[in-house]
Amino acid sequence: MSEQRIWTAALVVIGDEILSGRTQDKNIAQLASWLNVQGIRLAEVRVVPDRAEAIAEAVNILRARNDYLFTTGGIGPTHDDITVDAIAAALGVPVVHHPDAVATLERYYESRGGLTEARARMARVPEGATLIENRVSGAPGIRWQNIFIMAGVPHITAGMLDALTGTLEGGQPVISATVGGWVAESEVADLLRRTEKAYPGVAIGSYPFFRDGRTGANFVVRSPDQALVDACLSDLTAGLEQAGYAVTAGGI
Amino acid sequence: MSEQRIWTAALVVIGDEILSGRTQDKNIAQLASWLNVQGIRLAEVRVVPDRAEAIAEAVNILRARNDYLFTTGGIGPTHDDITVDAIAAALGVPVVHHPDAVATLERYYESRGGLTEARARMARVPEGATLIENRVSGAPGIRWQNIFIMAGVPHITAGMLDALTGTLEGGQPVISATVGGWVAESEVADLLRRTEKAYPGVAIGSYPFFRDGRTGANFVVRSPDQALVDACLSDLTAGLEQAGYAVTAGGI
Repeated sequence: MSEQRIWTAALVVIGDEILSGRTQDKNIAQLASWLNVQGIRLAEVRVVPDRAEAIAEAVNILRARNDYLFTTGGIGPTHDDITVDAIAAALGVPVVHHPDAVATLERYYESRGGLTEARARMARVPEGATLIENRVSGAPGIRWQNIFIMAGVPHITAGMLDALTGTLEGGQPVISATVGGWVAESEVADLLRRTEKAYPGVAIGSYPFFRDGRTGANFVVRSPDQALVDACLSDLTAGLEQAGYAVTAGGI
Repeated sequence: MSEQRIWTAALVVIGDEILSGRTQDKNIAQLASWLNVQGIRLAEVRVVPDRAEAIAEAVNILRARNDYLFTTGGIGPTHDDITVDAIAAALGVPVVHHPDAVATLERYYESRGGLTEARARMARVPEGATLIENRVSGAPGIRWQNIFIMAGVPHITAGMLDALTGTLEGGQPVISATVGGWVAESEVADLLRRTEKAYPGVAIGSYPFFRDGRTGANFVVRSPDQALVDACLSDLTAGLEQAGYAVTAGGI
């Protein structure tokens, strides 16, 4: 396979509710899966509290070393929603009301009691930003150069990602294929290592589990090259079967 | 309330399976909840790939600026388990086989085919480390000064945390109390801000949700001081009721 440019993204998850354990994050897995399809690799994630300096530090480091930076959380109407202010400060630009966002919110709240001052907060963006369509509720997401500022509520973020699908430049999506069974990974560690070595550019991940008192593992073969994935998976499956294991394509 | 020392911890989640979206992380929420009870605040989380430099960078930065650093993932027997080597390199110490870990693994695998070379990998630790009991399977966790190296499989990590309960110095646990209802958070944003301001040392988080086509929110009051939490929650509940909302203690 020829050397290809690898496009990367980072994610900053913003929210005390994740760090306190109150809320189980779902945006990491959701964004990762969506990025794969766009041919973009999620390279790093940071979870930071609702504190402007922590947000700014993470945003400035990660936007510089990745093609794209996503954030989730902290764009609602309440006092603990500080994402827009923190990112604008990090970028050194003022916060302005985006006229299209104001218009969208006016329409959305027309039958819901009107656009109060608190609700109008959700039209605030770092100067120079464009909007990301919110297909679920009123407040839009925000794009500022390579930064994408999204909601914390996972199904609102899902709608924003849906609106972005196909609009970001990426490379070859990473293809993965899985085989697994009731195998103790420690018994096949050498086989895994040898097989991965035989296929440069392919990564094999080994993911053990314990179920019904038994030990098993799924092995995931990953590469942007479908032919390499197929060949490696086929070799690995044969190796596992030769070692006496009944394995299942797709994993168990 | 007198100024109290706040103890902090960071977490480095290590694993391509999280960044690829294959696996939904559960260790962030699990560790966060456990730390709360120990009186330690989870200050920051990073998710990094199975790459030695990425692990080393995160470990060295976060261990320096927190009281404790936890890692999850990458301590199994296969080629993609590089956590111990990466952390030892970051610390500038060699990797050695810990004699107690070897003995534990020998006992564990006595009836399971014996301690192979691959399995003995799980006895490798950064020089100077002590062990964390694994109450679920064979391979122990590892402690090196303020670094705690734990499993990726959540219920194994749970067992290791259980073994550590009560052994780490911490401060006052953060106490939280929740009230919620079918409230649009944008309608009570001012009330939330005013109430938080009236109780220095207390944080109020606002967590909206959409369920059955309706909008609601839960409001979480947090502080290490039980009396402050009680008073603030009581004020907030009264304010919400005066504004015409039927709210439920504990949230909905």
